[in-house]
Amino acid sequence: MRFPAPLVTLIRELGRLPGIGPKSAQRLAFHLFNRPTADVEALAQALLDAKHGLDRCPVCFHVKSKDAPLCAVCEDPRRDAALVCVVEQPADVLAIERSGAYQGRYHVLHGVLSPMHGVGPDELTLDALWVRLDGIEEVVLATSTTVEGEATAMYLARTLHERGVRTSRIAYGLPVGGDLEYADEVTLGQAISHRRPF
Amino acid sequence: MRFPAPLVTLIRELGRLPGIGPKSAQRLAFHLFNRPTADVEALAQALLDAKHGLDRCPVCFHVKSKDAPLCAVCEDPRRDAALVCVVEQPADVLAIERSGAYQGRYHVLHGVLSPMHGVGPDELTLDALWVRLDGIEEVVLATSTTVEGEATAMYLARTLHERGVRTSRIAYGLPVGGDLEYADEVTLGQAISHRRPF
Repeated sequence: MRFPAPLVTLIRELGRLPGIGPKSAQRLAFHLFNRPTADVEALAQALLDAKHGLDRCPVCFHVKSKDAPLCAVCEDPRRDAALVCVVEQPADVLAIERSGAYQGRYHVLHGVLSPMHGVGPDELTLDALWVRLDGIEEVVLATSTTVEGEATAMYLARTLHERGVRTSRIAYGLPVGGDLEYADEVTLGQAISHRRPF
Repeated sequence: MRFPAPLVTLIRELGRLPGIGPKSAQRLAFHLFNRPTADVEALAQALLDAKHGLDRCPVCFHVKSKDAPLCAVCEDPRRDAALVCVVEQPADVLAIERSGAYQGRYHVLHGVLSPMHGVGPDELTLDALWVRLDGIEEVVLATSTTVEGEATAMYLARTLHERGVRTSRIAYGLPVGGDLEYADEVTLGQAISHRRPF
């Protein structure tokens, strides 16, 4: 017994999404099969609208409306243009914005350096970063604290230093509300080394 | 800083899918933003094709192509029409078909009895089951072994018995390849009670 072709196709397409395995794809497909047609059409339309209505900001490569010249941050004259925070993904911009602790601009790499996966400097938005360095005083390196994120931050720090731009790295330490007992030894070591006067 | 409207809409629509929380929805949306347009259009089209190209089999309520009169199982004359297996969802049909151990037909309830969630006999496909009882010798009750699945099986067993139809319940026991040590005590108790001569 085989599934009808449209169902097989939908399961295959859903299974291409990150974090959705074959079982989840099948479960989602059956869920959608049982939903009202209007709901499924709304999802399909949202996909098309997002794809056709969004673009990358030509300055910082964050997500923007296709009909806006720049993203919301680059368009805002109150944001400090001398301070640029480099992140891996648009979602990281949102996370930092939610903290309310940052008033500068951004630069979205759309990835990290990863020789293993064939991602070199040319695959990221680095050329555009070099172009906008004029007038920038400090670059905050806010890539992940993973091995690849660290390597990318290190590469950026070295290159920016050569170009005479000051860099900083987001602080390592214990998460706020975190229990000392559950912290890994590397994080705890960093938290102790970077301790501050109370 | 707010996201552009099409992105907000997409995150909201993705977040309506079962098992996809707000964080996952956002991650999926950004993933799709970075995919080629053709990939996103393929997913949107697969959603629409599945919704418009699929239907429920009028006999057993399993999924079928809209242009086929019956599902693949009901259409197959080699399948034993005197044996019907009652399952909760179309996905269960696929699971049983993969086992290769069953040659009868199916009846998909599209749910389980759940007074807590307002699902009574009228919300399931039971009326259609009573209608097709003529010529059926045995109904295999293959609802889940959850509390609600058991209650549904019990309700069906009682009602079918009143109508003079023989019922059976799928066997409880240890999963094949399962370690005794990791089996819960209820399953182990059932496995011992229902032991068979070796």
